[in-house]
Amino acid sequence: MKEMAKFLTSKEENYAQWYNDLVIKAGLAENSVVRGCMVIKPYGYALWEKIQQQLDTMFKETGHSNVYFPLLIPKSFFSKEASHVEGFAKECAVVTHYRLKNDPEGNGVTVDPEARLEEEYVIRPTSETIIWHTYKNWIQSYRDLPILCNQWANVMRWEMRTRLFLRTAEFLWQEGHTAHATREEAVEEADRMIKVYAEFAEKWMAMPVVVGHKSESERFAGALDTLTIEALMQDGKALQAGTSHFLGQNFARAFDVTFASREGTREQVWSTSWGVSTRLIGALIMAHSDDNGLVLPPRLAPLQVVIVPIYKGNDGLERIRARANAIMKDLREVGVSAQFDDRDTQKPGWKFADYELKGVPVRLAMGERDLEHDTIEVFRRDTLAKETLPVAGIARHVVGLLDEIQENIYLKASRLRDAMTTRVDSYDEFKRLLDEKGGFFLCHWDGTAETEALVKEETKATIRCIPLDATAEEGRCMVTGKPSSQRVLFARAY
Amino acid sequence: MKEMAKFLTSKEENYAQWYNDLVIKAGLAENSVVRGCMVIKPYGYALWEKIQQQLDTMFKETGHSNVYFPLLIPKSFFSKEASHVEGFAKECAVVTHYRLKNDPEGNGVTVDPEARLEEEYVIRPTSETIIWHTYKNWIQSYRDLPILCNQWANVMRWEMRTRLFLRTAEFLWQEGHTAHATREEAVEEADRMIKVYAEFAEKWMAMPVVVGHKSESERFAGALDTLTIEALMQDGKALQAGTSHFLGQNFARAFDVTFASREGTREQVWSTSWGVSTRLIGALIMAHSDDNGLVLPPRLAPLQVVIVPIYKGNDGLERIRARANAIMKDLREVGVSAQFDDRDTQKPGWKFADYELKGVPVRLAMGERDLEHDTIEVFRRDTLAKETLPVAGIARHVVGLLDEIQENIYLKASRLRDAMTTRVDSYDEFKRLLDEKGGFFLCHWDGTAETEALVKEETKATIRCIPLDATAEEGRCMVTGKPSSQRVLFARAY
Repeated sequence: MKEMAKFLTSKEENYAQWYNDLVIKAGLAENSVVRGCMVIKPYGYALWEKIQQQLDTMFKETGHSNVYFPLLIPKSFFSKEASHVEGFAKECAVVTHYRLKNDPEGNGVTVDPEARLEEEYVIRPTSETIIWHTYKNWIQSYRDLPILCNQWANVMRWEMRTRLFLRTAEFLWQEGHTAHATREEAVEEADRMIKVYAEFAEKWMAMPVVVGHKSESERFAGALDTLTIEALMQDGKALQAGTSHFLGQNFARAFDVTFASREGTREQVWSTSWGVSTRLIGALIMAHSDDNGLVLPPRLAPLQVVIVPIYKGNDGLERIRARANAIMKDLREVGVSAQFDDRDTQKPGWKFADYELKGVPVRLAMGERDLEHDTIEVFRRDTLAKETLPVAGIARHVVGLLDEIQENIYLKASRLRDAMTTRVDSYDEFKRLLDEKGGFFLCHWDGTAETEALVKEETKATIRCIPLDATAEEGRCMVTGKPSSQRVLFARAY
Repeated sequence: MKEMAKFLTSKEENYAQWYNDLVIKAGLAENSVVRGCMVIKPYGYALWEKIQQQLDTMFKETGHSNVYFPLLIPKSFFSKEASHVEGFAKECAVVTHYRLKNDPEGNGVTVDPEARLEEEYVIRPTSETIIWHTYKNWIQSYRDLPILCNQWANVMRWEMRTRLFLRTAEFLWQEGHTAHATREEAVEEADRMIKVYAEFAEKWMAMPVVVGHKSESERFAGALDTLTIEALMQDGKALQAGTSHFLGQNFARAFDVTFASREGTREQVWSTSWGVSTRLIGALIMAHSDDNGLVLPPRLAPLQVVIVPIYKGNDGLERIRARANAIMKDLREVGVSAQFDDRDTQKPGWKFADYELKGVPVRLAMGERDLEHDTIEVFRRDTLAKETLPVAGIARHVVGLLDEIQENIYLKASRLRDAMTTRVDSYDEFKRLLDEKGGFFLCHWDGTAETEALVKEETKATIRCIPLDATAEEGRCMVTGKPSSQRVLFARAY
């Protein structure tokens, strides 16, 4: 075990380096030759597939269908929604030509100047514009509403400073885009979906989140309201893990989408959009993992149980295999993924360390002595604890253990979050604790963009959200002393 | 029923128009504002999801893992593999800039000339180049082999003439990319995957295919051998539904990927790639559908069974609903998808026609008389036959019926293919029958690219493949009279 652990920089020593080492050493992803774009490797993609499967199930349970819209968006579309253009049309990949040709000077291929597009296309940074251009044809009457669509896709934003999973130029995500006849219905939808995200974060990722509204200056470009889930990472920084936007009638207006109401009047359509991305993998890593490697919640772990044989000679291996097969059969019957690692190219100690690095929740080991005594060693990744148990009934025990691990890492993250959430009433104390302790801060704020900008400039902390579950409390803005009626959540963030 | 059928142009009248009408009227896809790109609508995407799920399962069963590589590929990569550049670097979308800015003259946004990329990127038309650039770092020794990866992704080829699903500028696909230590292993892999495609086509799409090798001039750019599955559409044209390529050491050589062998020598890596795309949806439509709409194989139908109530008053509806719920419960327990259509906005006749258009394999209808007699009307989409049966045991009957439909549409397509496959020995007869009858032609060919090109120029027919299961047969090339040892498959193709 120890020999692998040293491959990772420790969290204490350098958190950013620990994160990057872990993503690479655990085989999740790596940087590519394309600026700011990553390669998602098999183990990382398997994790994304688990995330997708569960979210997709939840989207379908809430009545949504999947669709696919074009990757490219005509440049002019970005000018149609005034605030959207400011937020999205700037740093993006622009397609200007549609052909290469052999370089006349013999240096490979060159862009054919004859093949210039009349109007340039932008690789989608998000798809509101092209979707609303299309919805115009789908919506004539109230009978065509609501439209509840979602798309799993790649998007591109030409980010200057990138980090694997957390911020990449290209990333994978889902974007929901819904159209409604009334404001109430759209508000309700935006609310429903942020709650789906919160449930997914807490029950599946084992990651507690604060649900709330973004302040006006942190809203999505084009939204009237942005709801967010904010999670605390182990280094005390916040991470925005998902957002859901009430877009009002902004995109309907920009793309002239109206419908004949039940009463026969012509009305503009209301809309929402909501998304989560491969960034969730970064959140998952930073919420739970340790210096030995990944700690994955059993519900999302690509492999939940591994069985490692410790044997001498082929005879011993075959006797262990027979028992392992019986255990795996029992586990698979109840939907637990399990694998028997009989590779003879690696020693058991190396395997143990490797499965710890990869965050496999439960490791079973069986040796000669276990064969004699009908026992098996059970190791849990979250606490690193091991115990030797009888083989009889082991599958049932493991199923319970997986639930316990899921629960335990959620509780551990919750305790950390509670310990790292501080109520502060003085700006000086805020600044001091932000450096000394970090974490979430619940503070009074006067509600102005000026104060928010000042705090951001002076401390790099931002308002993560105005929590939904905040209790009304009279107070004074920690910066200006002006009256405030509830605390908001400040933090430095990824 | 008849009132809906008229929405479709008949196949006889205009096959191409029938196809396009059907794709649009059944809600599968539509053209978008982006040149040659389509919007895949909910029903079309649900079909794609069914296709993906099954193929993905088959890929995993054969040991493959999913990964994700960048959308963009540096332009220079296309010059690295000599024949690949000819095939792919030409008609493609080129990213030259990474920023838009507000137009100084106030006309929306414009491309920022300051933000020109040093090296342009191409939106992937296929990913061999960037993947092999990456594999170079993944492969040092024989222990790192084989690599068995697959990617589900969007790709772009700037096609001039596009048709929904069949040929679009952007399409969704999967591309498998494998690396091997030996030629034998790579050849075996290419073979394994074309057989996976053939099995999928026959067992799931209910579409018989001819498996074979492409002639040299029809090979994938960069391949030493291309295997293909060729299906016959109802208008007598062939459709290439999937390909698997043995790439030899071409990409390893181009990207300098070598490994230390077990014997300690340095060797170049062998590779394959293989893919199918949203084109399969086009194939599925053209293989089975009729003038009433889609005919979908039950194993891929997004909805397998619909129950339509025919009632007067709310009382009747509720009594039918109770029985329908019981039937749906039974169906769902055995994995059959079923829905009760209780919409009061549409009449039963409209619903019948709509479900026929959408190709739902089995429709159950229940009216007042059925309530009295404990019966239900069972309609099968493939033959349009209906019968009235007792409600007792209906779920079991439907399960059997779905299997029967799956089998029947496969047999129907097989019979058509057999009837439309002609052995011809004279070039004149070939030309005549190609126009009069169409379909597949098994002919002797002298094996030269010249003859192949001549036939293509004169008749627009191409060699679809050299069938794997062809029996040795001495003969003479129908064009040149030169000796030939087996027949090859000619057809006009999509």
